[in-house]
Amino acid sequence: MSLSSQPPAAALVFQTLLTQGPLTRAELGRRTGLSSGAVTKVSTPLLADGWITEMGQPAGERQPGRPATLVAVRPERARFIGVKVTADELIGVAADLTATPLATRRTPLGSRDVGTVVRAIARLVARLADGGGGPAVHSVGVTISGDVDGHTGVVRYSPFLDWRGVRLADLVERATGVPTVIDNDVRALTVAEQWFGSGAGLSSFALVTVGAGIGCGISVGGRLVSGAHGVSGEIGHLPVGGALGSAQVCTCGNTGCVEAIASTQAIVDQAREETGDPGLTLAEAVRLAHSGDEAARAVFTRAGRALGLAIASVANLIGPERIIISGEGVASYDLFADQIRRSFTAQAFGTAAECDLVVRPLPFEAWARGGAAVAAQRLFAPAGAGPQSAS
Amino acid sequence: MSLSSQPPAAALVFQTLLTQGPLTRAELGRRTGLSSGAVTKVSTPLLADGWITEMGQPAGERQPGRPATLVAVRPERARFIGVKVTADELIGVAADLTATPLATRRTPLGSRDVGTVVRAIARLVARLADGGGGPAVHSVGVTISGDVDGHTGVVRYSPFLDWRGVRLADLVERATGVPTVIDNDVRALTVAEQWFGSGAGLSSFALVTVGAGIGCGISVGGRLVSGAHGVSGEIGHLPVGGALGSAQVCTCGNTGCVEAIASTQAIVDQAREETGDPGLTLAEAVRLAHSGDEAARAVFTRAGRALGLAIASVANLIGPERIIISGEGVASYDLFADQIRRSFTAQAFGTAAECDLVVRPLPFEAWARGGAAVAAQRLFAPAGAGPQSAS
Repeated sequence: MSLSSQPPAAALVFQTLLTQGPLTRAELGRRTGLSSGAVTKVSTPLLADGWITEMGQPAGERQPGRPATLVAVRPERARFIGVKVTADELIGVAADLTATPLATRRTPLGSRDVGTVVRAIARLVARLADGGGGPAVHSVGVTISGDVDGHTGVVRYSPFLDWRGVRLADLVERATGVPTVIDNDVRALTVAEQWFGSGAGLSSFALVTVGAGIGCGISVGGRLVSGAHGVSGEIGHLPVGGALGSAQVCTCGNTGCVEAIASTQAIVDQAREETGDPGLTLAEAVRLAHSGDEAARAVFTRAGRALGLAIASVANLIGPERIIISGEGVASYDLFADQIRRSFTAQAFGTAAECDLVVRPLPFEAWARGGAAVAAQRLFAPAGAGPQSAS
Repeated sequence: MSLSSQPPAAALVFQTLLTQGPLTRAELGRRTGLSSGAVTKVSTPLLADGWITEMGQPAGERQPGRPATLVAVRPERARFIGVKVTADELIGVAADLTATPLATRRTPLGSRDVGTVVRAIARLVARLADGGGGPAVHSVGVTISGDVDGHTGVVRYSPFLDWRGVRLADLVERATGVPTVIDNDVRALTVAEQWFGSGAGLSSFALVTVGAGIGCGISVGGRLVSGAHGVSGEIGHLPVGGALGSAQVCTCGNTGCVEAIASTQAIVDQAREETGDPGLTLAEAVRLAHSGDEAARAVFTRAGRALGLAIASVANLIGPERIIISGEGVASYDLFADQIRRSFTAQAFGTAAECDLVVRPLPFEAWARGGAAVAAQRLFAPAGAGPQSAS
């Protein structure tokens, strides 16, 4: 955190407008701590280059004398493409500077072979780049689950694709001709929430994703917690399951992990065991539970309790202002919502229980939007600094 | 994190010298990102006021031409007093700017009544302030376990003292006539480690204290994680015990908490149960375990496993560069060291296992030093910003 890594005044002004604008120059000065001279100095080239624009006076404040113009970011000034890679398809989105989606496309993956996936990404990017006119694509952000090094652009390990040490950013950049960044998919979603979603303006928050995996992005003081050794937010591997009498073995080899109880596959496995039907699907397990089947309900109840204990662990250790629960899994959230809240409240220590729990569905396109947010962030916050708090 | 809360140039120069000095002006400029003109401008008043000093040329670099003088902080420029309040005694230390102890005193507490404790603190501060000459005492830092709000100076809840809503900073300030800050004891220890100990220069670290309670301080990006609702680092209330077949009820009312298995009292309780000796003391339990008694050994083994799982949870969620294990409890660390490492390694996810585990004994005086470090920090880093990373 040297001074040179602090956002310079121009980035600070731009970030403040991006997350809190439109603002008058005076308010911009107040929120950034910059003098009015400094605000004018850094605004001029941003205006000239079309990154920000003047919008007239704020409503209800028209007074005689010199009008106070509002300054705002021009979201249409740059375009980004976000791509989420899953085990069997690509989801792509073209988005503006504020990561607002302009167009979405999905494409199935015939193979998990690196070359095939890279070529498919390049075709998807080309199609998304073609549509709708607008400015040229500034950069591409590709996200993927697993251990991804955003700094070097290397996928160190992706269990779903069975990739190790893949220089994905370089490969996609060569195939598309567009600057490319990559990141872990949950971290990218957290970046999108931090700048443009439920995390904006908060001192700290966590985003828990429930689905094929159980992931977690953590933001403290406007910065993503990224882990000194590359690992962070592995809420799926907190050993809380023993408290629930679970002896399910996790993919990581341990017993008691949240993921071994509450991931999609774990729920299907347990429901098959409980109902004695080895061919049961997730949809059928959900239907059974909704229809009141005790065995199926018990599986979702246990998953909810494991998630509640894990979320309480995050609150007890980090004390975030808000925890957002999301992911494909929340589609059947009604089946375990009560248990999540109940075991969270019981286990949260003292005032940690005051943490705001928010549940949000997560359309698959939102994952791709995370990639666009990561790409955009490299432009306006090159040092990876988070948004300035409004308070 | 507004710009105005960033350390101004003078604080930045001072912090850099404090943690990385002595340095030449050129090196100081390089590490702070300031121009040589700016370094000179902010150094001049610091030199004039005796906060920093010039020390001659660096060894082995004497060259013809203009000599490169080293600049260093003068630790003796200011004195601080740190006081740790426990249930039955006060431990006080007088320390210099770098939190190096100059004198130590302990005093028993006859009562936990607020007035009695405040008067005892005032007497202890007066005695420590008298000794040794040197500059007047700049400020006092009082630390205490429990939920302490360092910003408002209020002890919200201290279970050991049975205090609620005590405006301790104001009371001590009035009784001593010296500006006073207060903080949670584990957080204060973490501040001392961050600036002057095993955490200096690290991107992130955690300090786990094992003793009457199981606490944890977490530092990410040079800042202490303090929790949006006042709670953070409550590693003692992670529900990992179920995995170990433990049904011990914690002071918080839950079962499976680390503290219900590994705190001093929990170890004594379990050892009494296992050995059938209701009068067994901790010292006797340690002696029994050392002599090979299976029942006593099993209690320490289970404590070690619970601590290992809890430490792995910190690593999986936050991924710190290093985790320091300390506290009175590590005096019998040989009895559970293996189990801590083994269950940490098994539960740590992927590269999170590369986290550096360090065990350090913690003399009781070190707790008081934490108070001195918190007091000193308010002087040189008023916004609570952490040390600049050297890298």
